[in-house]
Amino acid sequence: MFQSFSATTSPDQGPPRLAALREAMVGAGVDAFIVPRADAHQGEYVAPCDERLAWLTGFTGSAGFAAITQDIAAVFVDGRYRVQVRAQVADDFTPVDLPENKLGPWLAERLSEGAVVGVDPWLHTQTEVAALNKALGDKVALMPVENLVDRIWSDRPVPPSGAAKAQPIELTGESSISKRERMAETLRKAGHRAAVLTLPDSISWMLNIRGSDIERNPVVQAFAILHDDARVSLFAEPSKFDPLGPDPAIDIAPAADFEDALAGLTGPVRVDKATAPVAVSKILSEADIEVAWGDDPCILPKARKTEAEIAGTRDAHLRDAAAMIEFLTWFDAEAQKGGLTEIDAVKALEGFRRATNALEDISFDTISGAGPNGAIVHYRVTEGTNREIKPGELYLVDSGGQYVDGTTDITRTIAVGPPGGEERAAFTRVLQGMIAISTARLPRGVSGRDIDALARAPLWRAGMDYDHGTGHGVGVYMNVHEGPQRIARTSEVPLEPGMILSNEPGYYREGAFGIRIENLIVVREAAELGDGRDQLDFETLTYVPIDRSLIDAGALAPWERDWLNSYHAEVREKVAARLSDAARDWLEQATRPI
Amino acid sequence: MFQSFSATTSPDQGPPRLAALREAMVGAGVDAFIVPRADAHQGEYVAPCDERLAWLTGFTGSAGFAAITQDIAAVFVDGRYRVQVRAQVADDFTPVDLPENKLGPWLAERLSEGAVVGVDPWLHTQTEVAALNKALGDKVALMPVENLVDRIWSDRPVPPSGAAKAQPIELTGESSISKRERMAETLRKAGHRAAVLTLPDSISWMLNIRGSDIERNPVVQAFAILHDDARVSLFAEPSKFDPLGPDPAIDIAPAADFEDALAGLTGPVRVDKATAPVAVSKILSEADIEVAWGDDPCILPKARKTEAEIAGTRDAHLRDAAAMIEFLTWFDAEAQKGGLTEIDAVKALEGFRRATNALEDISFDTISGAGPNGAIVHYRVTEGTNREIKPGELYLVDSGGQYVDGTTDITRTIAVGPPGGEERAAFTRVLQGMIAISTARLPRGVSGRDIDALARAPLWRAGMDYDHGTGHGVGVYMNVHEGPQRIARTSEVPLEPGMILSNEPGYYREGAFGIRIENLIVVREAAELGDGRDQLDFETLTYVPIDRSLIDAGALAPWERDWLNSYHAEVREKVAARLSDAARDWLEQATRPI
Repeated sequence: MFQSFSATTSPDQGPPRLAALREAMVGAGVDAFIVPRADAHQGEYVAPCDERLAWLTGFTGSAGFAAITQDIAAVFVDGRYRVQVRAQVADDFTPVDLPENKLGPWLAERLSEGAVVGVDPWLHTQTEVAALNKALGDKVALMPVENLVDRIWSDRPVPPSGAAKAQPIELTGESSISKRERMAETLRKAGHRAAVLTLPDSISWMLNIRGSDIERNPVVQAFAILHDDARVSLFAEPSKFDPLGPDPAIDIAPAADFEDALAGLTGPVRVDKATAPVAVSKILSEADIEVAWGDDPCILPKARKTEAEIAGTRDAHLRDAAAMIEFLTWFDAEAQKGGLTEIDAVKALEGFRRATNALEDISFDTISGAGPNGAIVHYRVTEGTNREIKPGELYLVDSGGQYVDGTTDITRTIAVGPPGGEERAAFTRVLQGMIAISTARLPRGVSGRDIDALARAPLWRAGMDYDHGTGHGVGVYMNVHEGPQRIARTSEVPLEPGMILSNEPGYYREGAFGIRIENLIVVREAAELGDGRDQLDFETLTYVPIDRSLIDAGALAPWERDWLNSYHAEVREKVAARLSDAARDWLEQATRPI
Repeated sequence: MFQSFSATTSPDQGPPRLAALREAMVGAGVDAFIVPRADAHQGEYVAPCDERLAWLTGFTGSAGFAAITQDIAAVFVDGRYRVQVRAQVADDFTPVDLPENKLGPWLAERLSEGAVVGVDPWLHTQTEVAALNKALGDKVALMPVENLVDRIWSDRPVPPSGAAKAQPIELTGESSISKRERMAETLRKAGHRAAVLTLPDSISWMLNIRGSDIERNPVVQAFAILHDDARVSLFAEPSKFDPLGPDPAIDIAPAADFEDALAGLTGPVRVDKATAPVAVSKILSEADIEVAWGDDPCILPKARKTEAEIAGTRDAHLRDAAAMIEFLTWFDAEAQKGGLTEIDAVKALEGFRRATNALEDISFDTISGAGPNGAIVHYRVTEGTNREIKPGELYLVDSGGQYVDGTTDITRTIAVGPPGGEERAAFTRVLQGMIAISTARLPRGVSGRDIDALARAPLWRAGMDYDHGTGHGVGVYMNVHEGPQRIARTSEVPLEPGMILSNEPGYYREGAFGIRIENLIVVREAAELGDGRDQLDFETLTYVPIDRSLIDAGALAPWERDWLNSYHAEVREKVAARLSDAARDWLEQATRPI
């Protein structure tokens, strides 16, 4: 089994560690110290050696940070983690709500004139530091310091050194040298001599490699410098790259050499202020090298998937759909019997995915929530929270797989026994939002911000909503969450052909039930229709039935019903041949027209 | 009759005037001269003395500008005016497409090193001039000059001197002194000693007055300075204000004194770079007075209508709805007979509005387009274009009234005889977009940009769209187009309670037919529903039937059909008692449930 269900932290580990940190703060001459969840690579999953926030506070959520002073130890978390943080941290820690509270003003209010806030410059970006400096004003100073958690963390794990492997051109659709030359040209046009890359997925994409440093995200943890002649200097444990063989255009050196290499560059050097650690620009500036702020040059090209990547992703999704349908068939039978738990379901689902013999890893920890647990948006079941999936309740399962040809991410909400009227009404509205995105055609230039309301309007009309984005970017055998494209009011990046997105509206009634329906979609040039306007639309990638018993067919528009019926017909057509007899029978029932 | 149907210009007036202008350009030492449509007050309607663009070129559209060099006389117009400009200007003028071409780059390409572009600093804003300067770079210089059109326009009309009148507090809901004190406090908080006001609707709103200087827009043309102690200096022909009586806090001086008054101020003085003529900041700067760029302080308070303004607007809309329904009753009977023309319809509609005995003016020139003329978005019928409204065609009528208690703006599209299938399909999609906005509930903070797609999605899905915004702000017995709120991808101003907007999706098939359905709506706090989220919604202000014969009921969602039927029931309930017997009978038929 890949996923673990044990609590990895306990509240009572926190207080002694907090005391030690406060002592270290006195020694370092800082009045406050910030402990972010992020590592130097700003990834969603971090290696055990970078689990500083969890080690110090006990809080294991995927986002948040701590701000420690001698008087208060605050753990800032967003709406997804309000309940979880209270269960995981000791009373010595004070949960603080994001986004209502912002770190800068919060610190400015609590610290006295002349106070010093310590930050590890490898764990914060320029954007973060600038916002913090602005909020702190002249009153409080920000000081880069050695990481004080690392100093007191005596048994800290060593950094990961998982082997890298080559991703074949058949799956990437473009050679690494072509990518590097394309981006080197971008740099030369901008007059930049080099770009610093600190995101593992940018580096892995550019070099057509995948890694095994961190779970769930098959990327190589490294730093890199892309020179304007397309050469690359790579900084990581060199043995990681032994399986790849030598490449004369790529120099590999230990991570410890990164700082000296930066200081030896000729400027201007492009640095992404939103993703690179502030240490990078600090080293460059101290060596009198001009810093040119600009986007990581890989981000947008990476987001526009090649035909080969899209073809691979389609294959991965059909394989994954078969596993999901086997799971749903099994689930329908087992849930009737009683006694089935959230953990049982996660194990079974992983089993069906492993049975494809193609699963490299799951793409994130499965969210498996019955009844009220379904209303916890980023619920991760543990032995302590595990719940029986009871008749009359809804069950929400959000999961995905990493396959060598693609990454999947799918959510289905299933009624165990006949659902209640409120559940059906809410599910139908969520489905209408999801269909609105699935069927959308858009003028070129439109961003996720411009269409987010389409997914929410059916809920809004009933005084309902969901407190997360409608969709995130998804990689290809890469991170399941990637930018820059998103469907959210905060995203103004124009949607472009080849971008893969999730489409996942939801509805959550605290203490009662949660609903989310998620398919992945890919932006494409729309077939000509109507007035021949230049439009984009979405190709659906996910082909798994949507629970008919939760749909109030009478509330659907004719075109919504048509979409659902033709979607279900496509599911049968594309996936039936891959299924066991039992699952094929189940699918036949599950995809009857409504 | 208010509206005229004669062509006010002719193409052959242009060439001799162009020759005279080119001579004046040589005399003034400029290689190019810009002739905008705008006057110094950036209004949509301008006084006859400010019709420079029409006088010079013959083009009478409501937006556009000319750029004249010795080699080329370009008339820049947007998509609405592509056809019209070709009919109105002589061959000496070259139509240029907006927004594909931008003035700055266009000039930079055509002028040689060291060339000089003359502009009248009273007719261009700082924002425009900055954009132009940036595009022209070091190569070409921008020079403020006396207006060269005015110099050659020997029989130029005198500026308007229409009498002002007081708008009673019962209709404004807030006294002028309260408004002035509120805004003076805004200025003091910002550390500004005064604000320069150049928009007639800002000044009219602040002083609770209305004017008769220009047609359609009942505002007073003037400049004003609001001081930080709430005193106002007003610059316009003083006799305009005789009907109001003296106010010790308001000094009135001739417009000619405005420049000296500016030069005598103490800074910082707030100037709106998007609306004030660049002459204002030039005069201040030359007198060493600090310019503080900032929004016209009236714009946002004016947009948030008071309860009294909303109540008045409701009354005006019911009065106007009765006139519209009398018109539609008449139209239905007359159109059957044959021979009815676009101009006949305009005259009849104005007659019904005048018969209310409350009409001050129409709020804009009525757009009355049959068949292919309906596809011309800003069509203005003249004797030359007038067309018979024939059976089998669609007829589009976009019109409105100025009443002392409110401003209306309504579009209806009517089928003469049984409509074709494509017309019905398109009309139904436009209606679905219009219902999507009418029924929307929104979180606070959402802007027009965030909901524009709701109105377009039903068209987008069929490869269709419309090339104008979905909605504009509307004043109260004031300009029918006002900012800052809009429903459009370009508008990021959060919607706030009290803002009045139009809701007018459309569809235009060139050479065939045009469809637009427009109601006015006002933003309000939504009644509690669902999860008790803090939401806004729209109250509909316009109550006039929507042509049932153009609706494909089978394509509507259940909730869309419900909205339509309950809207029609409300029309009957609110307006029937105000109608003639014939119109009441017609209304009964027109509002049957579908």
